[in-house]
Amino acid sequence: MPFAEQAIMPTDEERAPLAEDHAAGGTALLIIDMLSDWQFPGGAALLAQATHVAAPIAKLSARCREAGVSVVYVNDNRGRWRSDFQDVVRHASSQVGEGGRVARLLSPQDTDYCVLKPKHSGFYATPLELLLRHLHVGQLILTGVSTEHCITMTATDACMRDFKVWCPPDTVASQDLDVRDRTLEHLREALHACIQASHGLQLPALRPSRGRKARKQA
Amino acid sequence: MPFAEQAIMPTDEERAPLAEDHAAGGTALLIIDMLSDWQFPGGAALLAQATHVAAPIAKLSARCREAGVSVVYVNDNRGRWRSDFQDVVRHASSQVGEGGRVARLLSPQDTDYCVLKPKHSGFYATPLELLLRHLHVGQLILTGVSTEHCITMTATDACMRDFKVWCPPDTVASQDLDVRDRTLEHLREALHACIQASHGLQLPALRPSRGRKARKQA
Amino acid sequence: MPFAEQAIMPTDEERAPLAEDHAAGGTALLIIDMLSDWQFPGGAALLAQATHVAAPIAKLSARCREAGVSVVYVNDNRGRWRSDFQDVVRHASSQVGEGGRVARLLSPQDTDYCVLKPKHSGFYATPLELLLRHLHVGQLILTGVSTEHCITMTATDACMRDFKVWCPPDTVASQDLDVRDRTLEHLREALHACIQASHGLQLPALRPSRGRKARKQA
Amino acid sequence: MPFAEQAIMPTDEERAPLAEDHAAGGTALLIIDMLSDWQFPGGAALLAQATHVAAPIAKLSARCREAGVSVVYVNDNRGRWRSDFQDVVRHASSQVGEGGRVARLLSPQDTDYCVLKPKHSGFYATPLELLLRHLHVGQLILTGVSTEHCITMTATDACMRDFKVWCPPDTVASQDLDVRDRTLEHLREALHACIQASHGLQLPALRPSRGRKARKQA
Repeated sequence: MPFAEQAIMPTDEERAPLAEDHAAGGTALLIIDMLSDWQFPGGAALLAQATHVAAPIAKLSARCREAGVSVVYVNDNRGRWRSDFQDVVRHASSQVGEGGRVARLLSPQDTDYCVLKPKHSGFYATPLELLLRHLHVGQLILTGVSTEHCITMTATDACMRDFKVWCPPDTVASQDLDVRDRTLEHLREALHACIQASHGLQLPALRPSRGRKARKQA
Repeated sequence: MPFAEQAIMPTDEERAPLAEDHAAGGTALLIIDMLSDWQFPGGAALLAQATHVAAPIAKLSARCREAGVSVVYVNDNRGRWRSDFQDVVRHASSQVGEGGRVARLLSPQDTDYCVLKPKHSGFYATPLELLLRHLHVGQLILTGVSTEHCITMTATDACMRDFKVWCPPDTVASQDLDVRDRTLEHLREALHACIQASHGLQLPALRPSRGRKARKQA
Repeated sequence: MPFAEQAIMPTDEERAPLAEDHAAGGTALLIIDMLSDWQFPGGAALLAQATHVAAPIAKLSARCREAGVSVVYVNDNRGRWRSDFQDVVRHASSQVGEGGRVARLLSPQDTDYCVLKPKHSGFYATPLELLLRHLHVGQLILTGVSTEHCITMTATDACMRDFKVWCPPDTVASQDLDVRDRTLEHLREALHACIQASHGLQLPALRPSRGRKARKQA
Repeated sequence: MPFAEQAIMPTDEERAPLAEDHAAGGTALLIIDMLSDWQFPGGAALLAQATHVAAPIAKLSARCREAGVSVVYVNDNRGRWRSDFQDVVRHASSQVGEGGRVARLLSPQDTDYCVLKPKHSGFYATPLELLLRHLHVGQLILTGVSTEHCITMTATDACMRDFKVWCPPDTVASQDLDVRDRTLEHLREALHACIQASHGLQLPALRPSRGRKARKQA
């Protein structure tokens, strides 16, 4: 049934393409909410943890670009629906201190994609699902903050849409390390996410590591 | 990139299949709002026209089942969100008069699918898109009532999701024939729908007829 | 700005009402996936726990109906998208053994609402959000199975849509009690759900109990 | 039932507000796809007509800002999902010729909102509905291009969500004037849109003009 194979999900990529290429390995890396001024309740404590994951995310995103894996920034838009992504980048990068350092370390490249989200999940009221379809993506690597909110809610929506989810513990942060670990355990148990350190990810086509059953690998 | 080909749209059809088989030709027939008690403003006038399209829809749906094309009833649920599809079928079929005759003529078969919709478009706040994905459907034949409301609004949502739409004029009804014809012209012009009489449809894999440019073919 | 007050969310409840009345206290009770044949991996173990929560849910739903709080069954449809809600009820109720006893204990009443869902969350690809809007509901009591899957994923979607969520521990079940408790902790921490025993809920307008800070109240 | 009144649609506008204020009169003006390089099939012919509606839209948007009616730019993002709204504005405004003149005439102000859309309807896979909820908007004035595609598809989605739609004929353009007029007739007939010249709109709380039954008022 050759037509049906093409028609699994009809996608007019010629007339209105959201993406330029298909993602290598059918894989995309999402970087969630790392571009911020951290001016919200608990923001300072979250930033203190986020600084530890910024370097591993930067390294992983460089490997992804090298391997042809799509890199997608999924970010809050600083409240009002007037700013746009470049505003978010500029505002975050121009800060003095750790928040600015994190933003500059994770500076988006020309080939990356960006999705502004109004609420916690990257899938809610955004074009993310459509973009991933145009990229031919079936597996997601989730990174950023915070593990128990935006990461988990994006992972939940991803699983419900049958994406396979990877969540490297060294690339997600929470205010509280125990909450982060409990949340990763929940993602592993309930959503069957692969909780696997970023350096071990085999790009572009991810494979679960043999040791995936082992808990708290990070 | 073999994985990406499979991953165009990740669909876990094994664990939670909405459909039993894939649709032949990647095609589904939607029968919209023909099961009704017609107790709404203008209902009698619409029913008078609907009686003319019931037989062509019945004939087309029989051909579809024969060819392996999926038949999906997409129907209002009589207002309150308490009734279910069998209630709708029973209520419509048990009527005296034309409304009952139409419902009995279009009686759903065991292999058909059914989707209750709360508003005009079959895609809005329903599992229709997910069902079509599990059926591997990329092209839709739209039939039923009324041409300018639920048919057009379902066609609009279908086109936005890159489905190819067929709309046979002999299988859609409006209170007013002129409105129906103007609406079909709008569907042809704006949504590039194929407006082609039902008997000429080549099932299961639809092909536009050579004479598709000719208007008002029905 | 009197118009704007009415227009917070335009809802044409007169022409196409999904609900008959508004929910007392702006509150609805959701009963999730308790009508089942439990024929899935781990189903027997989950049923063993579900039998313990069936009576508390039955008691709570009776109190809700008495108080004018809307009762909404949110249920899987046994795989194929052909069955409807009455089929689900009949199939579940006619079973020999515990599954049948649970279904008969939780038998839907004429004034209850029902939503069939294709995936985990009651909000995904269903009319649930629209129904809750027509009911004027702003707070949800979540009950049923399983805590870490459909309950949590429905709670996640509810919070993202700004519903306030109550989740009584004595009315939700998991195969594993530890997983249930960890999940409730996650709901409390990350989604700010009120984890409060069902007998203490003040209907129809819920109020957090004074002891809500205390963990594992059930 | 005071709580229920507040709870018509729960909206946490305090913690994550998309809008700064509520729209006066519960009304928003949408300016659709007027910021473009017109580099698509039929683009030149559409631009030729768009130049005629740019001045009326500019005048109407100035009146809206004066009256406290929200102005929302709803625009394609030039294909790839990398650019952002300021890119779109700059790219359109810097053109030589009519396209640049139109973009500069319709230059967004600091108090306006902007939504990038991936497909035809402003509601599909965007935060538009959520933004309108935070603005407390119940009625929409649709302007821009093209009447039979993005205007109609946005109007269709708006009506299905129970927004009341105004569409001033002097503020929407099509390649073909006859198609525009037929489309407006369809919007009036099928979606009950108010087709009324822009200068007659009573801001902020719109009222249908007495002569609204008369066709082709523009």
